[in-house]
Amino acid sequence: MKKRILTGDRPTGKLHIGHLFGSLQNRVKLQDEYDQFVMIANVQALTDNFDNPEKVKESISELICDYYAVGIDFEKTTIFIQSEVPQIHEIFIYLANFTTIQQVSHNPTIKTEIADKKFESSTPLGFYIYPIHQAGDILVVNADLVPVGRDQAPMIESTRELARKFNETYKSKVFNEPQAIFGTEKNIPGIDGNVKMGKSLGNAIYLSDNSETLKKKIKMIYTDPNRIHATDPGKIEGNIAFFYHDLFNEDLDEIEDLKSRYKIGKVSDVEVKERLFFAMEKVLSPIRERRKIAENQKDKLLEIVLENSKKVRAIGQGVVEKMKDAMKIRF
Amino acid sequence: MKKRILTGDRPTGKLHIGHLFGSLQNRVKLQDEYDQFVMIANVQALTDNFDNPEKVKESISELICDYYAVGIDFEKTTIFIQSEVPQIHEIFIYLANFTTIQQVSHNPTIKTEIADKKFESSTPLGFYIYPIHQAGDILVVNADLVPVGRDQAPMIESTRELARKFNETYKSKVFNEPQAIFGTEKNIPGIDGNVKMGKSLGNAIYLSDNSETLKKKIKMIYTDPNRIHATDPGKIEGNIAFFYHDLFNEDLDEIEDLKSRYKIGKVSDVEVKERLFFAMEKVLSPIRERRKIAENQKDKLLEIVLENSKKVRAIGQGVVEKMKDAMKIRF
Repeated sequence: MKKRILTGDRPTGKLHIGHLFGSLQNRVKLQDEYDQFVMIANVQALTDNFDNPEKVKESISELICDYYAVGIDFEKTTIFIQSEVPQIHEIFIYLANFTTIQQVSHNPTIKTEIADKKFESSTPLGFYIYPIHQAGDILVVNADLVPVGRDQAPMIESTRELARKFNETYKSKVFNEPQAIFGTEKNIPGIDGNVKMGKSLGNAIYLSDNSETLKKKIKMIYTDPNRIHATDPGKIEGNIAFFYHDLFNEDLDEIEDLKSRYKIGKVSDVEVKERLFFAMEKVLSPIRERRKIAENQKDKLLEIVLENSKKVRAIGQGVVEKMKDAMKIRF
Repeated sequence: MKKRILTGDRPTGKLHIGHLFGSLQNRVKLQDEYDQFVMIANVQALTDNFDNPEKVKESISELICDYYAVGIDFEKTTIFIQSEVPQIHEIFIYLANFTTIQQVSHNPTIKTEIADKKFESSTPLGFYIYPIHQAGDILVVNADLVPVGRDQAPMIESTRELARKFNETYKSKVFNEPQAIFGTEKNIPGIDGNVKMGKSLGNAIYLSDNSETLKKKIKMIYTDPNRIHATDPGKIEGNIAFFYHDLFNEDLDEIEDLKSRYKIGKVSDVEVKERLFFAMEKVLSPIRERRKIAENQKDKLLEIVLENSKKVRAIGQGVVEKMKDAMKIRF
């Protein structure tokens, strides 16, 4: 039997090239080898967007189009919507007996995010419990593997611990202990040079951006701020135009040529960016084409996702019944 | 339409005479006038008994027998099991966005119980969230009224606030704001004179106690510790034998006679307790008889409760769907 993978996204906006290299390409690869589940985490998205349900709703549709666009196969990969699988909440409630608020409060993810969001004196309970609730996401399909960034490692560790404690307490084998896979994913800086690309930072290139928008954004890309004229020697390091060249441009000779000329002031930023535009277009225009196909059959794709959600519900119900058996509350 | 009442018990032991006067008699009265729901809160019981599921399981059966014994009508009152209504957890998850951990931590019930249970440095998350989870119990049937003790008032207030905030945020009318009814319930002291009667205190008279056990426990009842001989003048105040006489003995003249003779040293503790035994038997033996009938048809009664739980599940599903409509996550 193929091993089960659980991964997902919060529907809080469209996906960008950071996601493409960060997780999407990886999923396209993994879907052949594994039994892959991709969760659209709309319940989690509502924990800090509860007053903007319209945004979450629209983002679900955008995510589905983005998935289709990058080549996630809706037959091979089980894409599902979190709110359609209430067993996740049920699993969470029972697991919540196996952690303490002291442990939750020391979770590094929660600590950082509470600081980032300036929640110190008013942290929504829904937001506070979500690292534990995520254990429910993983365990609802009893996933074997969870591809995550290194910063998410503590969350997987706490999921493993909850699974282990539950099994031990009830002398049962209800849960796998899922393992993290730390992917080959790269962190992609924004067009402004910020190490993080994000919607709220206004520095993202979206998979849904058209040619014109792409061209405009490339013009804005942060290069070498000390270089005024094309004849000035320029720096490659920290130069986002070259960072993107390395990512997108398949013509390695061209990259080498541009870099060496850049260093000695023999090529303009304009030319570097024109070449980058062509390289990016080569990768992004087929994605954009597929995205248009997806947009034209949104309803059908959503229907597939909802059918998949039913499947996950059935899997989750099986897990819940095993839990209830163990806890002697199955009637 | 009749107003809806939600009330319930944690299945953590058998019920005693404290419950009889505290809530059970009230429920027998209310079931004619109202659409009454009684929840067996086994999920909540597991929050601090998660390592003893056998106890919770057995207590469910005991509760059902106790309910039948005191005259709760299984047709008029909808008795249901909490774990059979997972919509409660789903409602909780969405409501958790409308409170903060600062508010939860200041909840007087939680503060007291964390201190009582010496949980300071390791409070199970399941236990911590349960006052908010209780809002799910109440709102899953959109109860109009919740009979509670005064100490539970903050919990009802927070439920009202969650209901209100949800309605306001989504400009919806999903929830009633349930109201507390502070009953006429009396607090019944234990046989040892402790103001609280409880299993863990070892000072309870159970509805399931047989005649012999009752007699033995009555002999142990705390009276006037300064009275050595039957001829010593005795105190009525704080005397549990007389407290119970006032509760159980219908013969008011007899009570008056005993009290006045007690004060002047003209009646023995033995006689006071013998009269008490007869008075208590009069109330408790019919309950005991009905309890035997219940014990002989445990399976049938459990079946009714499980059928009722299905009904509540359907009601809860209706509430969840309205919530999802409001949050734009209904597909």
